[in-house]
Amino acid sequence: MPQPIRRILFIMFDQLRWDYLSCAGHPHLQTPHIDALAARGVRFTRAYCQSPVCGASRMSTYTGRYVHSHGAAYNGYPLKVGELTLGDHLRRIGMDSWLVGKTHMRADAEGMARLGLAPDSVIGARVAECGFDIFTRDDGLWAEGPDGFYDSRRSPYNEYLKAQGYDGENPWASHANAGVDEDGQIASGWFMRHADRPANIREEDSETPWLTARAMDFIEQAQAPWLCHLSYIKPHWPYIVPAPYHAMYGPEHVPPAVRDARERQNPHPIFGAFQANAIGRAFSRDEVREKVIPAYMGLIKQCDDQMGRLIGRLEETGRMGDTMIVLTSDHGDYLGDHWLGEKDLFHEPSVKVPLIVYDPRPEADATRGGTCDALVEQIDLAASFIDAAGGAVPDHIVEGRSLLPFLHGEVPEDWRDFAVSEYDYATSPMAAKLGVAPRDARLFMVADKRWKFIHAEGGFRPMLFDMESDPQELHDLGDSAEHGEVIAMMQERLARWGRRMSQRTTRSDAEILAGRGGSDRRGILLGVYDEGECDPEVTAKYRGTAGQRFDL
Amino acid sequence: MPQPIRRILFIMFDQLRWDYLSCAGHPHLQTPHIDALAARGVRFTRAYCQSPVCGASRMSTYTGRYVHSHGAAYNGYPLKVGELTLGDHLRRIGMDSWLVGKTHMRADAEGMARLGLAPDSVIGARVAECGFDIFTRDDGLWAEGPDGFYDSRRSPYNEYLKAQGYDGENPWASHANAGVDEDGQIASGWFMRHADRPANIREEDSETPWLTARAMDFIEQAQAPWLCHLSYIKPHWPYIVPAPYHAMYGPEHVPPAVRDARERQNPHPIFGAFQANAIGRAFSRDEVREKVIPAYMGLIKQCDDQMGRLIGRLEETGRMGDTMIVLTSDHGDYLGDHWLGEKDLFHEPSVKVPLIVYDPRPEADATRGGTCDALVEQIDLAASFIDAAGGAVPDHIVEGRSLLPFLHGEVPEDWRDFAVSEYDYATSPMAAKLGVAPRDARLFMVADKRWKFIHAEGGFRPMLFDMESDPQELHDLGDSAEHGEVIAMMQERLARWGRRMSQRTTRSDAEILAGRGGSDRRGILLGVYDEGECDPEVTAKYRGTAGQRFDL
Repeated sequence: MPQPIRRILFIMFDQLRWDYLSCAGHPHLQTPHIDALAARGVRFTRAYCQSPVCGASRMSTYTGRYVHSHGAAYNGYPLKVGELTLGDHLRRIGMDSWLVGKTHMRADAEGMARLGLAPDSVIGARVAECGFDIFTRDDGLWAEGPDGFYDSRRSPYNEYLKAQGYDGENPWASHANAGVDEDGQIASGWFMRHADRPANIREEDSETPWLTARAMDFIEQAQAPWLCHLSYIKPHWPYIVPAPYHAMYGPEHVPPAVRDARERQNPHPIFGAFQANAIGRAFSRDEVREKVIPAYMGLIKQCDDQMGRLIGRLEETGRMGDTMIVLTSDHGDYLGDHWLGEKDLFHEPSVKVPLIVYDPRPEADATRGGTCDALVEQIDLAASFIDAAGGAVPDHIVEGRSLLPFLHGEVPEDWRDFAVSEYDYATSPMAAKLGVAPRDARLFMVADKRWKFIHAEGGFRPMLFDMESDPQELHDLGDSAEHGEVIAMMQERLARWGRRMSQRTTRSDAEILAGRGGSDRRGILLGVYDEGECDPEVTAKYRGTAGQRFDL
Repeated sequence: MPQPIRRILFIMFDQLRWDYLSCAGHPHLQTPHIDALAARGVRFTRAYCQSPVCGASRMSTYTGRYVHSHGAAYNGYPLKVGELTLGDHLRRIGMDSWLVGKTHMRADAEGMARLGLAPDSVIGARVAECGFDIFTRDDGLWAEGPDGFYDSRRSPYNEYLKAQGYDGENPWASHANAGVDEDGQIASGWFMRHADRPANIREEDSETPWLTARAMDFIEQAQAPWLCHLSYIKPHWPYIVPAPYHAMYGPEHVPPAVRDARERQNPHPIFGAFQANAIGRAFSRDEVREKVIPAYMGLIKQCDDQMGRLIGRLEETGRMGDTMIVLTSDHGDYLGDHWLGEKDLFHEPSVKVPLIVYDPRPEADATRGGTCDALVEQIDLAASFIDAAGGAVPDHIVEGRSLLPFLHGEVPEDWRDFAVSEYDYATSPMAAKLGVAPRDARLFMVADKRWKFIHAEGGFRPMLFDMESDPQELHDLGDSAEHGEVIAMMQERLARWGRRMSQRTTRSDAEILAGRGGSDRRGILLGVYDEGECDPEVTAKYRGTAGQRFDL
């Protein structure tokens, strides 16, 4: 048994595409610091998020459970009181679980009130923060419109910026995520034509370096054992980055869009609706891609530099030898591929995530620098962290499985043969446009190494891609008669998954096995006609003189 | 809109077979008081429990959710903290929810401790009692063996018996559920050969009259609006009943067993394992049936007489005019049919339940005395109670549907076309014998008005019955090649059910519809290239002079 890990640095970027790293083959973007981490760990090449949208993906990551199990299916849908989180599992085995950055958690205020949980109590605060203790909480979307802020909480980042002398009430919007136009006016990053301008902020004050500094502060003072979830908002939109990153890449570095005119001809209705929305239309324009993607690359380059800074600090302080580091993202970004922008659907640019796991222990030496192409899901991280910390994974609650065997050269024989991801678009205008009821606006992806199948509730046909003959996923076979058997196989897998045991969380398999058939020793005697059929020990309580007679 | 109901008397018997009532056609057993209630209400002839075992069935009834949704899949499996109950839903609309009798609830002590819920606080007590406030809690199984009591709590019924002068520490066992043999020794009801003896207790002190008196006490002092769950342990085993009920029925009143020699020839392995257990073997013996069934009938007869007493009191006090009464059971009893005893599997004697709903309001006048053959599930009761009390059913949480339209002559057009029941036998010796892992020891029934399909996890073939040509369910068609299409249809239904939205409980459909597409008004601007593409109102926060320049 390896020695338990006592420090876990769990780094999540937001909307970082799996293939926008040089270690994953990007043709122009160099990410040497992330690559160096991959060279010391294992890079998983088939890691899928549980839902290609921030909130749902993260709630799965933090609970180790599918969206269909925890129900927080979209941004802003509260994670119900009662769902156990990584923090709950780790605290049981003595490890604290701290947050530096974003979770996209919405507290179940109604459930907390019902159970009398005060948000300012220790327990209430953890429930409200999906199990983390808070070092710095900043969800990073301080958007503001006529109906107020998107996020009504206080922004530590905005407070930091104000303390540094940035003007106004929302320097996140007016400086960190905006440039300046020719007339000295705010050129907001929300408007993509400004994406090539430098953000009007000192680079060291922008969000990624600021959060990195907070993580270094955390690490400096933290008492092990700890897990620190360092969770960046970037390279998530608004697509704008400070100098010098704004000028590092240009249209010549933008890979061609992975898309085909056939995708627009009679597409699956849901795919068609997403193509037709404002985002899809915008990202289908070359000028948008040519503005946005260089900024996105610059944001990633800055992230990589901050990884260099952070890992450098760990090196200097001797922490690289006893800290596990996991680096991932919550989902990808279409960036115009498949005539789409953002995430939402299940093409690889959206649903696949980068995932690097560095385990400092000698047991992982043999796999350093390797890749693993097993079907991995983001729910596996919770299980991996519990395993790393020396705990037994409570597999009646956590649906993911530990990835550490892959690092330790013990590939599990019964590893999953398909991965599942989900998307709930009930709240989107596409559901309204398609006339889909809220409970039918749900998609399920089932993917193995060859086939990717997408089931849509609401009476739509499925989608299907052959990733072997069509790795770019340009040809939807969902209505192909000759693929009937493949579709049936994928439907059977989805059916099996749908029936999975996901809620029997109050009784472990071990407890069940231990409890089998013990009720007779507590006096429950079934199918017994005559005392002589039983061990006298179990019938002893039911013998003796009858005492006073009342039956007359 | 009917006036809201302010008093709901929700009566549950335990293990009362649907067809052991004269209104349901029993050839020998007369139940005039229950029949009279049916004559004033509607009797549902196709009501299924959600699981043919006490605990799981009840947790579904009290939450309005499938077992697969709440996870308390077997007796003694705690209902997890966070699951909403009938009590939670009714209290929201101002109705209290009181318990008189049994629930089979096991509190989620670990979950409560995690959330800091003290069992003796008001909230903690409700969470621990699946949402009820307690008037009298008595689960009615005070069995005792070498490892102690089956139920470690205090028994109010035992305390009552002791106060009445019954001897010993556990008069439930030694008097209420035991007779006296020829030598003056305890003849325990656990040993079925004693089933024809009178229990050694005054009839008025036996469990059913005792609990009826507690219900009358409750009603006398209760302030409306209230729901009172009057939940009897009987006619559940031990099969023994006080005089004169012990002598009312004899072997001549025992209906022939519904069973066929073919059922023992190469049965489905799980069916075979249940046939082969001690219970199945015992109930396959005629002497067992001839001892037990007359006692079971006597217990029911006593229950019926107590219904006469209770309803008589409601009549006298004028409460019949403003009290809704629902009468049901948590599951049935095989009683030797199909070579089985007890419940567990899905033949009609086990999975079907009696269900009578009496609505005192004039809107229900037209249907009084009628029957309804719609496919009804026990989760429909929670929805019905919320509806009766004037609430809107929160259908993102409660999976059942209100039955009141059937009483009010408004048959819903989109009523379900199949019913589902489940059984988790992980804890049973049959799982060990069959070599089934705890998470695979699960069965799912899908039934429509013609077909009953049973899916077994763990690699077994399905079971199938044609209820039209084989209403006694003697011929399992699960391996019939010519029924492949029916099996595929049922599998598709089960798959659809498995994917149902059961956990998105923190956001209602109405909230989702109201929230569609509002994020731009909180400043999230997606797919926007140029300010001119947006309403100036939503871009207003992102305009203005840039102030100090930091981007240089």
